[in-house]
Amino acid sequence: MENFVFHNPTKLVFGKGTIEKIGEYLKKDGIKKVLLLYGGGSIKKNGVYEKVLRSLIENRIDKVEVSGVRPNPVLSKVHEAIRVARENSVDAILAIGGGSVVDSAKAVAAGFYYEGDIWDAFIGKYNVKKALPLYVILTMSATGTEMNGNGVVTNDETQEKFYFSSKHVYPILSIVDPTAQYSLPSNQLFYGAIDAISHVMEYYFDISRSDLINGIDETIIKTLIRTTEILLKEPENYEARANFCLATTLALNGLTGMGTTGGDWSSHELEHAVSALNPDVAHGAGLAVVFPAWMKYVKDKISDKLIMFGKNVFGLNGDVSPDQVIQELKKWYSKIGAPTTLKELGFGRGDIEKLTEIANKHAPFGTVVELRMEDIRKIYEIAYE
Amino acid sequence: MENFVFHNPTKLVFGKGTIEKIGEYLKKDGIKKVLLLYGGGSIKKNGVYEKVLRSLIENRIDKVEVSGVRPNPVLSKVHEAIRVARENSVDAILAIGGGSVVDSAKAVAAGFYYEGDIWDAFIGKYNVKKALPLYVILTMSATGTEMNGNGVVTNDETQEKFYFSSKHVYPILSIVDPTAQYSLPSNQLFYGAIDAISHVMEYYFDISRSDLINGIDETIIKTLIRTTEILLKEPENYEARANFCLATTLALNGLTGMGTTGGDWSSHELEHAVSALNPDVAHGAGLAVVFPAWMKYVKDKISDKLIMFGKNVFGLNGDVSPDQVIQELKKWYSKIGAPTTLKELGFGRGDIEKLTEIANKHAPFGTVVELRMEDIRKIYEIAYE
Repeated sequence: MENFVFHNPTKLVFGKGTIEKIGEYLKKDGIKKVLLLYGGGSIKKNGVYEKVLRSLIENRIDKVEVSGVRPNPVLSKVHEAIRVARENSVDAILAIGGGSVVDSAKAVAAGFYYEGDIWDAFIGKYNVKKALPLYVILTMSATGTEMNGNGVVTNDETQEKFYFSSKHVYPILSIVDPTAQYSLPSNQLFYGAIDAISHVMEYYFDISRSDLINGIDETIIKTLIRTTEILLKEPENYEARANFCLATTLALNGLTGMGTTGGDWSSHELEHAVSALNPDVAHGAGLAVVFPAWMKYVKDKISDKLIMFGKNVFGLNGDVSPDQVIQELKKWYSKIGAPTTLKELGFGRGDIEKLTEIANKHAPFGTVVELRMEDIRKIYEIAYE
Repeated sequence: MENFVFHNPTKLVFGKGTIEKIGEYLKKDGIKKVLLLYGGGSIKKNGVYEKVLRSLIENRIDKVEVSGVRPNPVLSKVHEAIRVARENSVDAILAIGGGSVVDSAKAVAAGFYYEGDIWDAFIGKYNVKKALPLYVILTMSATGTEMNGNGVVTNDETQEKFYFSSKHVYPILSIVDPTAQYSLPSNQLFYGAIDAISHVMEYYFDISRSDLINGIDETIIKTLIRTTEILLKEPENYEARANFCLATTLALNGLTGMGTTGGDWSSHELEHAVSALNPDVAHGAGLAVVFPAWMKYVKDKISDKLIMFGKNVFGLNGDVSPDQVIQELKKWYSKIGAPTTLKELGFGRGDIEKLTEIANKHAPFGTVVELRMEDIRKIYEIAYE
């Protein structure tokens, strides 16, 4: 087990009927005016917006709004929200949405106090010193952003999809009401599952090992697999939905990183290039394609763990080979409806070079194998078809 | 799954060579003078005291000391430490020790700002409003106190062993260096394991159920069982020691309580009477005796979970009965060297009535079955031999 520091100050409020409490929580913290940040209109259709508004009014909390945050969120929207937040001197950001909205909100919270372009935090030019307090109402469980200090945003000018991390952007409070996710389309459900499973796998297939944390990892992934299958048939099964939601939060709140060297994260780097080149590709879809390809490329270095994973997660018995486990994972991704090749995502062979170039901007990356341009190209080739 | 709120702001610094960093952390937080609280002389023998002192000196942090906190810590020592902390106007408490020292330190931290007797917090007369910042160097992993807001102290005048909880006494920072525990005697190791296992079981055998958290519970308990067996033979096996230590922390930092109604905790109430009547009884020893007796008493209400526990933790197969699982747990306790009856702990039959009276002061308690005087007596009778 490697040395580690765990510090996660976010308060997680979890369960049915918790969204209505947001106003009380804000009031208790002395917040008077918030910037409401959200995406398209779904929160107006499923009743979440109305619940939040009623709770804000009851607790006399003012708000201004910025909407239209899109999946694979862009920097220009972050800039717009920073401007609105400043012009209206808000005390806090209230993000209502999934990963895209919350990640954008983190950049807004940090950008509020920064004189330069907050993109600097993404390219390592600025180490965030201060941020507006961030409150979250999560309407789609997937990325774990509700309980960590990371955000991913695409610079729409340069096509770069980068992330930043800061202890200052951990949400003060995140509300997760599983019932608010009953109406999510099934692809958002299974891409969310793949995203969360990939977060756990980035740590699991690290060069380090803690049997305790690996066991917890396996439990989280098994829960995601089991509950995804139930929810595809019964989206309003509360027990399955609640276990799914909590599993996605625990997948990336620091727990699964305990005792590791911090994870490998190559597959995330490789995926960011995919959805930067084609912003219509969901992050989970990209991960379903590149993660198994990465596994194949490094399989000799992670064969023990692949076999352990196959036995403990997929219940494989007897002589298990690393290839068989990778195949099992891909099979499950296909079964739930996810693509497993770049071709299925609509890329042509000619895109491999473009993807390699974009990903290579961050190279070398990875801890299991430090990937350079040549490795990156080979992995995209494996992922192609 | 039940609704829950999780909020744990403690920073956990885990691993080899981390004790030496305490001075830096304190300095960074602006602490100038600490009250060093510790127990007997073990920290002077194993080098921990020296490391801490050197780090404090290097970072120019003043200290005053109160030592002599004993296992099953007493209120009179808490009073003494509050007096010393006040007379010397310390900025923080630095607890070096196991559960007894850290729990006492929590009472000192809270008592520092309270005009009345801090015992009021234990008997529900005072709701803690403020506390001195608490820093912890854990030298014995067992109770999980390094990452929660609970403390248990015995009032040496009244023989009452009570607990208090407050968000204000979560340690700011806890350092866990597994190598500092290499020299612990084996009984402290296995009583620690039993304590941590019991913490998890209080939630696991609750009336609520989350498959995700139950799976995590099983992983934690399996880790404790496996690593205890290794450490009894190889106390300096770092991987086993580190996994053991982390498992005890996760057993009671809120993770295992997610999605539950808050746990049953009857066995803890029943045990507190045992070690209040005879302070020489280790908390873990008392739990090894009363928990299986409680299980036997309520087995019809928890039979599904007992069977699940038997299969997933002990690997039992086929037709598993609840009694068989309880037997398996007792067998393991005996195997590692723990007593499993009140008689083995040195109590006579006549003590059952005294124990019942002490425990009954807190009755009714428990969520699986709400225990009253008659139930309590029957459980002690089951536990007797």
